[in-house]
Amino acid sequence: MRHIVRAQQFTPQLIERLFHRTKQFKKTDGRGFEDTLRRRFILNLFYEPSTRTRLSFDAAARRLGMEVLSTENAREMSSAVKGESLADTISYVTGLVDVAVVRHPQEGAAEEAASRNEVSIVNGGDGTGQHPTQAFLDLFTIEEFMGRLTNITLVCVGDLARGRTVRSLVYLFAKYPGNSIIFVSPPEYRIGEDIKEYLTRHNVPFSETSNLSETLEYGDVFYCTRPQLERPNPYGHVICDERMTEIRVEFTMRLVHVERMKPTAIILHPLPRTFELHPEIDSNPRAKWFPQAHNGLWTRMSILEYVCVG
Amino acid sequence: MRHIVRAQQFTPQLIERLFHRTKQFKKTDGRGFEDTLRRRFILNLFYEPSTRTRLSFDAAARRLGMEVLSTENAREMSSAVKGESLADTISYVTGLVDVAVVRHPQEGAAEEAASRNEVSIVNGGDGTGQHPTQAFLDLFTIEEFMGRLTNITLVCVGDLARGRTVRSLVYLFAKYPGNSIIFVSPPEYRIGEDIKEYLTRHNVPFSETSNLSETLEYGDVFYCTRPQLERPNPYGHVICDERMTEIRVEFTMRLVHVERMKPTAIILHPLPRTFELHPEIDSNPRAKWFPQAHNGLWTRMSILEYVCVG
Amino acid sequence: MRHIVRAQQFTPQLIERLFHRTKQFKKTDGRGFEDTLRRRFILNLFYEPSTRTRLSFDAAARRLGMEVLSTENAREMSSAVKGESLADTISYVTGLVDVAVVRHPQEGAAEEAASRNEVSIVNGGDGTGQHPTQAFLDLFTIEEFMGRLTNITLVCVGDLARGRTVRSLVYLFAKYPGNSIIFVSPPEYRIGEDIKEYLTRHNVPFSETSNLSETLEYGDVFYCTRPQLERPNPYGHVICDERMTEIRVEFTMRLVHVERMKPTAIILHPLPRTFELHPEIDSNPRAKWFPQAHNGLWTRMSILEYVCVG
Repeated sequence: MRHIVRAQQFTPQLIERLFHRTKQFKKTDGRGFEDTLRRRFILNLFYEPSTRTRLSFDAAARRLGMEVLSTENAREMSSAVKGESLADTISYVTGLVDVAVVRHPQEGAAEEAASRNEVSIVNGGDGTGQHPTQAFLDLFTIEEFMGRLTNITLVCVGDLARGRTVRSLVYLFAKYPGNSIIFVSPPEYRIGEDIKEYLTRHNVPFSETSNLSETLEYGDVFYCTRPQLERPNPYGHVICDERMTEIRVEFTMRLVHVERMKPTAIILHPLPRTFELHPEIDSNPRAKWFPQAHNGLWTRMSILEYVCVG
Repeated sequence: MRHIVRAQQFTPQLIERLFHRTKQFKKTDGRGFEDTLRRRFILNLFYEPSTRTRLSFDAAARRLGMEVLSTENAREMSSAVKGESLADTISYVTGLVDVAVVRHPQEGAAEEAASRNEVSIVNGGDGTGQHPTQAFLDLFTIEEFMGRLTNITLVCVGDLARGRTVRSLVYLFAKYPGNSIIFVSPPEYRIGEDIKEYLTRHNVPFSETSNLSETLEYGDVFYCTRPQLERPNPYGHVICDERMTEIRVEFTMRLVHVERMKPTAIILHPLPRTFELHPEIDSNPRAKWFPQAHNGLWTRMSILEYVCVG
Repeated sequence: MRHIVRAQQFTPQLIERLFHRTKQFKKTDGRGFEDTLRRRFILNLFYEPSTRTRLSFDAAARRLGMEVLSTENAREMSSAVKGESLADTISYVTGLVDVAVVRHPQEGAAEEAASRNEVSIVNGGDGTGQHPTQAFLDLFTIEEFMGRLTNITLVCVGDLARGRTVRSLVYLFAKYPGNSIIFVSPPEYRIGEDIKEYLTRHNVPFSETSNLSETLEYGDVFYCTRPQLERPNPYGHVICDERMTEIRVEFTMRLVHVERMKPTAIILHPLPRTFELHPEIDSNPRAKWFPQAHNGLWTRMSILEYVCVG
């Protein structure tokens, strides 16, 4: 039984294989695969709403012929009864479906669900932990536009403290030779020590700065993120309104920034965006966040096929 | 790319064509069309709950073989991040579906979504603005029971200030010769000036009254509506409990009213009803609001086919 | 037109027939029946959330080829308009679907919906009233593991005052000869007088106790339930924290209890569980609550087929 719960699971071999399949799905606009997973059932088991991720899995599963069950209020399954375990819920849904996409506010929830090994689990994002299918689609998009996954300078911009998408992407990115990373964030939102230790251990050069401007000429891929104000700041900082205004000014990517980038540079964002990507750069050829988002469909098709039939 | 965002889009030619198709769907109970839109995807993108409208589109789409994605909490897509634009959301879903039914609390939202021209938009009701598929099913029902769309006296009863269904219906109704309209409402809920100007400009005779009783013998079609207490009164009236009780008494259609109507008259209502249609008239042959509601399925099938394949 | 609204509707003849069909579904893992109810529509009309029941009906319906419409917020259909009747809602959905599964907080709601006879109604649980499809799957599970439905001592444990699942099961159980029932509950949660009168009238021996320990050697089937703290205690008891702690201690089934049971005894639970089944008994061979839950799929397939095609 196969699960996708952590970005680290994707070996370069698996990535290559899934990229190949993803490109087939994309080239054919996903048509002609309606019998691939016919009569298989998938459950979107969402303990917190994430409409985009849910719709993306839903559309991917149906293009493969799957039947899709969904709940956006999985918390209700246990709310009336305090303390129903995730394990019990998984044991229940095992009887209904072949795959469960688990979205959960707590780090490690998907891993716990997968440990039952009763139904294939795909991690649809767990707390500040991982979001491996997002990382995989990010990587696919980089390869699509850069033509390579090596010798790339990745600039991670924004809220790096809480951004699980950055975290998962960095794990994948470190697997390829010649890559380096620049982390750009307000000091209050700097990247976690665990990531820096991981990169040191894997000999991936990286640097940190809070000055976006000085990175512009160097980056091949700019990966921007929004401040996740809905989650607590892990460093305990309380950021007052004045400071937030400063951050907004300093960390809004505008035409004046983009024009200093390499012509081949691309700008990605896991969406939704807030202030950090100014609409005036939407039509710049480096803006790739919507093509990136649309790749979610094709990459998730390949991931679902993988967990179901290998 | 075709969109349905305003009732005014329906020309008599288009209406005739869609009526023809709607009748085919209805006659066959919608069976045999499962391949018409096979492998096309539709998204119910609902920013406010409207279970009836959503279920109606859902059932219509499936009878045409479409795959249906839904969200009843589209606000969640942007709530955590204040100010995510509808434009960004539309750009996102473009990659997933062929058609999006947009239900939105703000007037003009569907039009804005359609202006991107990235995915076919059907307006599922936007604020106090328009609800064109409701107007179209109303018109179909009138034609079905009256056998014509001309030389009809339409009596609009109830909350005419906030009723977008009345508004959209009047636009369509004005396109046909020989029609006239009587607006019957409490003074606090009178029809807007823009509608009256529109009718004057199109030479459609109309009158206004707050006395339901004096209209009964004249109407061919009585279109009743409920007070939309969940939306603010556009004239700024605050209606006290005593006055509301008076309104309830004066504007409840009872057997004593219905029996004074022409034998061929019909009573419509966009549902749900509150006090305005007394249950004692449910079995009167003029009561046509449930057949009207059921026409939503067949009319929406024809609208979805239109936006998808022309 | 067929409805399933009360457990009492299941005659032994009907039960036998549905058991036969359920076994066929289970044996084939529900595959090969995708055309059985092809092009039929079902609506999950849920006035209160019940994710498990909804997913179970959803999965059952799709395995039979049905199209599934769902609403988890049917209350919204009437909330903006106080007092929209269930009757009007049913008349509306009649035009969309062939079957409606009604979940409603008020006892008798499903019966009222069925009385319109416009669409087939399946009771998905109404207040403290009935939950006939749960009772049917419980009965099926008993027959599956015991090999019989006669000469069984059923021990009902826990919150018997509010447990509609116990109530519905007892009605079915009383139809078979040689059965007897032991009700074990805290005095505050004792079984209702109506059930006792029913059993007396049908000559089914029963006894009551609040001492779980003294029943262990006698039971063939232990049917455990959780305290439904979300519903008011029908006897008006207010249970303080100290007393609740006592109840938890006395009514948690542990290995020390289970090992005193007959080797052939089975333990059931309608799920979700709280404290009443200790995880240490999960791997005991008498623990059958997950197989029981999984039977919900096959039994609901047979019930849907029954209401649709007889």
